[in-house]
Amino acid sequence: MGLREDAQKIIDSAINAALPHTAVKKAIEGIDFSGGKLVLVSIGKAGWSMAKAASDLLGDRIDDGVVITKYDHSEGDLPNIRIFEAGHPVPDENSFKATDEVIRLVSNLSADDKVLFLVSGGGSALFERPIISSDELEDITEQLLASGANIVEINTIRKRLSAVKGGKFAKLCEPAYVYSIILSDIIGDPLDMIASGPAYPDSSTYDEALLIAQKYNINMSSEVKELLSKETPKSLTNVTTKVTGSVTQLCMAAEKTCKELGYKPLVLTASLCCEAREAGSFLASIAEYYKDTKESLAFIAGGETVVRVKGKGLGGRNQEIALGAAEQLSKLNNVAVFSVGSDGTDGPTDAAGGYVDNNTKEILKKQNIDIHEILDNNDAYNGLKACNGLIITGPTGTNVNDLSVLLIKR
Amino acid sequence: MGLREDAQKIIDSAINAALPHTAVKKAIEGIDFSGGKLVLVSIGKAGWSMAKAASDLLGDRIDDGVVITKYDHSEGDLPNIRIFEAGHPVPDENSFKATDEVIRLVSNLSADDKVLFLVSGGGSALFERPIISSDELEDITEQLLASGANIVEINTIRKRLSAVKGGKFAKLCEPAYVYSIILSDIIGDPLDMIASGPAYPDSSTYDEALLIAQKYNINMSSEVKELLSKETPKSLTNVTTKVTGSVTQLCMAAEKTCKELGYKPLVLTASLCCEAREAGSFLASIAEYYKDTKESLAFIAGGETVVRVKGKGLGGRNQEIALGAAEQLSKLNNVAVFSVGSDGTDGPTDAAGGYVDNNTKEILKKQNIDIHEILDNNDAYNGLKACNGLIITGPTGTNVNDLSVLLIKR
Repeated sequence: MGLREDAQKIIDSAINAALPHTAVKKAIEGIDFSGGKLVLVSIGKAGWSMAKAASDLLGDRIDDGVVITKYDHSEGDLPNIRIFEAGHPVPDENSFKATDEVIRLVSNLSADDKVLFLVSGGGSALFERPIISSDELEDITEQLLASGANIVEINTIRKRLSAVKGGKFAKLCEPAYVYSIILSDIIGDPLDMIASGPAYPDSSTYDEALLIAQKYNINMSSEVKELLSKETPKSLTNVTTKVTGSVTQLCMAAEKTCKELGYKPLVLTASLCCEAREAGSFLASIAEYYKDTKESLAFIAGGETVVRVKGKGLGGRNQEIALGAAEQLSKLNNVAVFSVGSDGTDGPTDAAGGYVDNNTKEILKKQNIDIHEILDNNDAYNGLKACNGLIITGPTGTNVNDLSVLLIKR
Repeated sequence: MGLREDAQKIIDSAINAALPHTAVKKAIEGIDFSGGKLVLVSIGKAGWSMAKAASDLLGDRIDDGVVITKYDHSEGDLPNIRIFEAGHPVPDENSFKATDEVIRLVSNLSADDKVLFLVSGGGSALFERPIISSDELEDITEQLLASGANIVEINTIRKRLSAVKGGKFAKLCEPAYVYSIILSDIIGDPLDMIASGPAYPDSSTYDEALLIAQKYNINMSSEVKELLSKETPKSLTNVTTKVTGSVTQLCMAAEKTCKELGYKPLVLTASLCCEAREAGSFLASIAEYYKDTKESLAFIAGGETVVRVKGKGLGGRNQEIALGAAEQLSKLNNVAVFSVGSDGTDGPTDAAGGYVDNNTKEILKKQNIDIHEILDNNDAYNGLKACNGLIITGPTGTNVNDLSVLLIKR
């Protein structure tokens, strides 16, 4: 079997492991839900898919439930579960109404009861109930944005103006026990950041919140000032958190499949964040060092690189990673670098990513296509198209960053 | 012992292994020089140091010898060896005269005799005897440069116009046997490129030479045209080549010392060539993945990165690699990234490179120094100076590219 076929198998298995359905199933298996009532709360862009997975597994063991997802992201009814769609990335009245439903759902639970809380990206906007007027919240957010406050600073303020963020949702569930299953799309899995951490102890302090308000000279009512002075939960005794389907699992699934295909795999990182084409060059440099290896090797990197846009071409970060490796690989034998976005979309293209090997440069050269020119014009899509190097998966239904792999086959 | 002390030990041992003296000694040991006459020819910027190492080891076993090095690069007399200094990077009359001395030295050797041929960077200019007039050689070189010919194309032409390049020196030594010891400063050790390969089979063909002359429409005499049509040696039966003190050995020495210090080392590459700060970020991303490791780990990368100059600050590629890792390392424990140029010089600074660890960001923050601003201004030198992160070695006497290391200490 060739490198391209190996690449496809690795991509398929990694993305499959990161699908909400697979990931939720894996996370739920083994949890003991026996006892009182079981209620489900599923928020985020993958809210419906995650709830579907739980529903498939637990059936009518789920007594009641609420899904809050983005408009047009629901795919049908689920038994015992009410489905709401709401605004994203800016919360709207439907976010607030649906969040009120959730608050009602968990407000009168007993110590025997359990909450299965499923969280995916976008939860911050979809799951929100301000405890000040939405007009004032909007005003304060705009002031913060206009003064150049960063996302951590904005969240430190906003957590204190919300009924559910910063660990407060878990408090509302008390005395019931919460199993929080997080489908992570933020590199490094910062659990108090994802969806603004409704069921995770908040690491920010009221001192910090007040300092931020002072630093940016924010105009606010005395009511808001008082809220900023209140502390968020610093510890939660009724929550177990499991991260699932994160970029780490994407890498580990790739690692497993590499092993099955006869490669000796090594995961280098799950938090790659450098420039895409430079990451491609780095991977190719590794291939150069191991050119005389007797055993097949695979080096795996997960993360989310960046592209420095200079040209007017078409492409995406994964396509640039691949093409960034092509020049150096051309001097070697039986080596390939490929990279895909787990959501199946890379940049504004219909490709999920790109694949190159030691033959790519020659194939392009025959068509008078120069790799450096293509990269300088950020036109990786057309470069890869010309050498059959586009990886097309279609939308996958998950979004846990990117997977890049170097294969050295012997 | 701390990370900084470990870093210093690794740097010291790696540079020591790449010093001409150490490297030549290692390469010569075990060669059987018994038999007839032994003559030494040592060319390049490290010509004197390499000859000194051979002289220290072999003493008056060396019957006769010639060193050709750059002006002011000789450090004194050596027994039985004549020392010449000549032009670099442009060859001059002294290059030609000294090369004539070498040609005389090896021209009447017998099959029992041996030539110890020591080669270092700069040999292409220092060891040269054109077989056309130096005026015409200069003219053709200028035409090639003006038409945008690359270094491989220029060398393909020039090898055919030289009495010693492209394997011809080894032919001149016949029937004597040549031990060619190469101190490599070119990534990937392309043996027919270093010093234009005087004792290495030439990979270029006369077809290529004629095509290049045609492609760039070079004006030349019929004499030159005839020379271009002649083939260079494609195989040499009287030469053994050993590469020593290359960037690979720099990495391997670092690997050995890491092991002695209790780290489990992995050499990732010896041909890193991407952007410096992106390489730093890549190394830091690896540290993030292995943050929970129970054993101490070291990841080693050799090569020569590039810097994209946008700002007006002071720095060098090794300093940018280190500082490029600092932000991400700040979230971890007991991790460091350092990078040094083996020649002891990094950019236009008095530092050899830089060192950062998980505390660097905090130390800089207290001085109101922002890592991103410093990097965007290409001012790594002043950033590292403020956190005691400059690595100063002084000139080391070798030049085999750079060494970058990530240490994770447990």
